[in-house]
Amino acid sequence: MISLSRPQIEALIDHERAAELIEEAYRAVSLGKVNLPPVGHIVFPEHDGDCHIKYGHVEGDPVFVIKVATGFENNAALGLPTGNGLSLVLSAKTGAVRAVLHDEMCMTDIRTAIGGAIATRLLIREESRRIVIVGTGVQARRQVEAHLKLMAGRDLEFLVWGRSAEKTTEAVVELSEAFPSVQAAADLEQACRQADVIVTTTAARRPIVQRDWVQPGTHITAVGADAPGKQELETDLVASADGLFVDLRPQCLDHGEVSTAARAELIGPDSLAELGEVLAGEKPGRAKDEDITIADLTGLAVQDIAMARIVLSAFEAHES
Amino acid sequence: MISLSRPQIEALIDHERAAELIEEAYRAVSLGKVNLPPVGHIVFPEHDGDCHIKYGHVEGDPVFVIKVATGFENNAALGLPTGNGLSLVLSAKTGAVRAVLHDEMCMTDIRTAIGGAIATRLLIREESRRIVIVGTGVQARRQVEAHLKLMAGRDLEFLVWGRSAEKTTEAVVELSEAFPSVQAAADLEQACRQADVIVTTTAARRPIVQRDWVQPGTHITAVGADAPGKQELETDLVASADGLFVDLRPQCLDHGEVSTAARAELIGPDSLAELGEVLAGEKPGRAKDEDITIADLTGLAVQDIAMARIVLSAFEAHES
Repeated sequence: MISLSRPQIEALIDHERAAELIEEAYRAVSLGKVNLPPVGHIVFPEHDGDCHIKYGHVEGDPVFVIKVATGFENNAALGLPTGNGLSLVLSAKTGAVRAVLHDEMCMTDIRTAIGGAIATRLLIREESRRIVIVGTGVQARRQVEAHLKLMAGRDLEFLVWGRSAEKTTEAVVELSEAFPSVQAAADLEQACRQADVIVTTTAARRPIVQRDWVQPGTHITAVGADAPGKQELETDLVASADGLFVDLRPQCLDHGEVSTAARAELIGPDSLAELGEVLAGEKPGRAKDEDITIADLTGLAVQDIAMARIVLSAFEAHES
Repeated sequence: MISLSRPQIEALIDHERAAELIEEAYRAVSLGKVNLPPVGHIVFPEHDGDCHIKYGHVEGDPVFVIKVATGFENNAALGLPTGNGLSLVLSAKTGAVRAVLHDEMCMTDIRTAIGGAIATRLLIREESRRIVIVGTGVQARRQVEAHLKLMAGRDLEFLVWGRSAEKTTEAVVELSEAFPSVQAAADLEQACRQADVIVTTTAARRPIVQRDWVQPGTHITAVGADAPGKQELETDLVASADGLFVDLRPQCLDHGEVSTAARAELIGPDSLAELGEVLAGEKPGRAKDEDITIADLTGLAVQDIAMARIVLSAFEAHES
């Protein structure tokens, strides 16, 4: 039985390899080859906390994965991380526990960022270079990392914008140590008007990015809205996009960026293509250079499965 | 973060202390003080396997528990145990993972046996001495152990019966090394006719214990039937019992020993008292010496929670 700590896990993750498996996972979901039972959930109202249990199995995989993730908002005041958790990898042939991955949420952060970068890579105009990152938290930083690692051949530059100038400076200082192509954006409207790509990563409950700011040819990857009530993009922007892409149709219609437009009956299920459908060649991606495309990602358990598989196989390859 | 192996866990379990917490757990369930979300379940038909995820939180507890248990029937042919699993203990205040208990099912086996011994202790006639154990597997052995440990003051003797004479001998030889008061029963009818207590532990799908065999004053603890279709006691025996006790009313009506009699409309929910109700003094236990009483136990996640708490607190007490 293998037990790995967060630093061990981070060292084993190769973004390119992870992206391959996550693309495979998106295809498997869209082709109906994944067994994903309902997510387990338990709440702790006294401490503003909850725990989600996501688990599933991809047809033919030798392992299945159970991911336990907790979120306790009061932790911040105690100087503790709000998110915690681990992933269990079990044999799908014998039920034996193969590995306990104490990733403390880093696998979730990284798979979310890789999902975003996969969507961007798939849907941008060929000559896209300037990426605006909305938000300054962990996910904003992970998106910069994932976009750079998955589009290494492109001469990308990043503009990071956050509501707080202080936090923006902090994020940019940290990021620019590793990635010299990162700068702060003083004004979001101006940044959006000049962007080839906009990546939104906030927990906003009111739209931040306005329709008028977004120019033809822009691609938007939105990963912040992962629960009912969250929204980063104006409803009009979503409703008028030339191409709308999601990770999972029913999940995004329920609580993704597209759910508001769907509830207003401005769009329907037929307006949406799943990333897996595009990756499998079953649906087209971007049609024209001047299109505005949006990828709305709510996060899938199958991404967690892929991450756990990558970590386990990298560990085993390293050991052998 | 604490990680314990099966031998470490077994060494930390004190039956008396565990029984206290499991009795407390039964009371908490019956008083509605436990948050038990629906059990998670995923199947692997190719390998005749499945995985259950049970989790919950007892009001006021500093921790909550997630138990993962797998059952892969094909393992037996491979020389591997069919059951596997672990329990996670997490803080109910911060969501942090406190412990991973790699018990490989032994906590489940022990808590099931302790539940049985609690029921027996609670419901027998004062002068009961002779206990017939039906079955020769792990649970039969665990029941002998738990009954002896939780009723140490009584001069108990055990008769073990199994369908296979060979397996019965094997079980008795093993048990009598630790417990001299254990003998084999050649004939189940005869054994039942002389029994004060009958404990059934098999996975039988047809009744084994007949109504005519059971004498006034006998108590029966039945722990084998834990899924629809399993039955160890004749329906008539259940329907005509003077006292019917269960661990959880809806669960036992669905897939316990009492479910067959309930479906035949011979008994209803009002015929049943929960152990927690009796332990809390809300319902009476055995009324008269000559009554036949039956305790039908299907196993509760709250027992798993109690076991994980015991192991963790014993470990912490040992370390400090």
